[in-house]
Amino acid sequence: MSVVSKGLENVIIKVTNLTFIDGEKGILKYRGYNIEDLVNYGSYEETIYLMLYGKLPTKKELNDLREKLNEEYEVPQEVLDSIYLMPRDADAIGLLEVGTAALASIDKNFKWKENDKEKAISIIAKMATLVSNVYRRKEGNKPRIPEPSDSFAKSFLLASLAREPTAEEINAMDKALILYTDHEVPASTTAALVAASTLSDMYSSLTAALAALKGPLHGGAAEEAFKQFVEIGDPNRVEMWFNDKIINQKNRLMGFGHRVYKTYDPRAKIFKKLASTLIERNSEAKKYFEIAQKLEELGIKQFSSKEIYPNTDFYSGIVFYALGFPVYMFTALFALSRTLGWLAHIIEYVEEQHRLIRPRALYVGPEHQEYVPIDKR
Amino acid sequence: MSVVSKGLENVIIKVTNLTFIDGEKGILKYRGYNIEDLVNYGSYEETIYLMLYGKLPTKKELNDLREKLNEEYEVPQEVLDSIYLMPRDADAIGLLEVGTAALASIDKNFKWKENDKEKAISIIAKMATLVSNVYRRKEGNKPRIPEPSDSFAKSFLLASLAREPTAEEINAMDKALILYTDHEVPASTTAALVAASTLSDMYSSLTAALAALKGPLHGGAAEEAFKQFVEIGDPNRVEMWFNDKIINQKNRLMGFGHRVYKTYDPRAKIFKKLASTLIERNSEAKKYFEIAQKLEELGIKQFSSKEIYPNTDFYSGIVFYALGFPVYMFTALFALSRTLGWLAHIIEYVEEQHRLIRPRALYVGPEHQEYVPIDKR
Repeated sequence: MSVVSKGLENVIIKVTNLTFIDGEKGILKYRGYNIEDLVNYGSYEETIYLMLYGKLPTKKELNDLREKLNEEYEVPQEVLDSIYLMPRDADAIGLLEVGTAALASIDKNFKWKENDKEKAISIIAKMATLVSNVYRRKEGNKPRIPEPSDSFAKSFLLASLAREPTAEEINAMDKALILYTDHEVPASTTAALVAASTLSDMYSSLTAALAALKGPLHGGAAEEAFKQFVEIGDPNRVEMWFNDKIINQKNRLMGFGHRVYKTYDPRAKIFKKLASTLIERNSEAKKYFEIAQKLEELGIKQFSSKEIYPNTDFYSGIVFYALGFPVYMFTALFALSRTLGWLAHIIEYVEEQHRLIRPRALYVGPEHQEYVPIDKR
Repeated sequence: MSVVSKGLENVIIKVTNLTFIDGEKGILKYRGYNIEDLVNYGSYEETIYLMLYGKLPTKKELNDLREKLNEEYEVPQEVLDSIYLMPRDADAIGLLEVGTAALASIDKNFKWKENDKEKAISIIAKMATLVSNVYRRKEGNKPRIPEPSDSFAKSFLLASLAREPTAEEINAMDKALILYTDHEVPASTTAALVAASTLSDMYSSLTAALAALKGPLHGGAAEEAFKQFVEIGDPNRVEMWFNDKIINQKNRLMGFGHRVYKTYDPRAKIFKKLASTLIERNSEAKKYFEIAQKLEELGIKQFSSKEIYPNTDFYSGIVFYALGFPVYMFTALFALSRTLGWLAHIIEYVEEQHRLIRPRALYVGPEHQEYVPIDKR
């Protein structure tokens, strides 16, 4: 029996113990834990442990995990060089692809089912190094490896920004990492699964995920949403802009709507709250937050009857911007967090339900064409 | 309605005018033309035109295409540098991923539906440059850009081997390029489609395809098949090896069996014939060909009742080896040819039937877990 499904909608590519989404009710859980609980009480490191090992860690397990992350920030020199030899104005996700591809080309002896979870932890640490250095490269700064600390978010921010982050900033980064950790099997995760299903290595699977994340319909959405706020520029211009661009010109409102959620994205709620705490000391971020709030109101009024609500990308950019990152880094920050989800999914797939992914295409072209020599065409 | 399909078997991810496979009868057609006709009468450049533009070219169209290819072998210096800074023993497909990712990071202003086919031709030329230079890097040679010529295969061989290839070698390379051009939607093409469905750029889509191709269950198969011949080492040892490794130890016979073909892969027949013409002047290749023939006989006797026959990867390695390429390059040569198929599929998908690819995962984990603070775990 063959099934035609455009965009693979409603096709189940795997079973999972990782992430549950109720798109009707706006519920997101990692391994049965509400995203709200994990954000309010946990840390990204706890989430790493939970996703990879299936349970929340004890204090000892959490300390061991932190230690392991601290040991794994180093990457081969060639990998850093591959990022720094690219032009400063290169695309951030493209640069990340270069970095993960470089790691894939060097890590030649990769084998599945040999300490997969330990490898995943090492890769998560190295992604912090790559993302930091993509930012540093693009800003014209020198390479810097994250230093060991008691927080992955802190080590990452310190290496990226080259200044001691505040407790509030570390907290916001940590929560953002939890929020973007996983979302079942969007295009990037699907690309990673397809690659891993051939028993390609973990780094190549991440490269495939990044290639998919790069598209404006996926990871690029937070950047696109934020660019709207910049284009609007002033809270007083929101209504005019909305009527002109969205109602009259029928442009898509970026950061709104989701294939799965038919209601308010639970992550958007948390990002909105996080943004509201960070903007007090940053007047530009505050302005964008006000614009976003007004835009949200108009968007909900216009689209909620079509089940279109703000998604996670609507407010996340304001959080990243308030942390000091430029717009071009938003998708890379998404990638840093999602690396955990990508790895957890491919490990689950390869270890527990492996099968080569090989769909079909339905041929609708001419049945038979007689070859005509070039002189007679 | 949701459909559970392991490995997406029998799920139709797109419709296509490109490639038709009858796995029962062993028929492969590109746009309705039998693969045998295209190999016997056509050239890879004709195949490029056919796949991208939907018809065989006139003389003028073919000349224009050749000219365009000749103009597009150059790549930015940073892209070559990114390959040459990696260690010599880096994985060949990993290096290609680095190269395509580097191109993706630099080609920032990519837009779909703007001269997609011309872009594809440019990318095919650049892939020749990348594959040549992956080989040259791994051999410790200096960078070299393919020079304009009247044949893509010739320009590629000349840049790779740094010697004038014979007419027989150019012919064999040209045919090999046609044979690996497309095969509907295997994992690599699926990965490219997933990436392109987010409207990510063409280079990133290729990077995703390469990441999937890298796996031993996909592009790595020609290398694995050939390694068997090397391991056997002597035509007199085939039966012993087969009984020991395949019958007793139940190892998989590499280069045999295919998800789609239930009979002899039509490409394998042509590769076998090509190999037989190339081996006369190469005694090592001749030995491997004899080993392969004996192994084929035993394999068919053992497995044909299970509809398992030689696939395209069984003899292709002998062709590549006889051309002078080491085993580690086989998958990269596959990639050089398949770049056309990958690009033709993603262009067809984005231009004619675009939809974001977003399957689902079926959650089977715990319904609800109460968060327990770390002190109480």
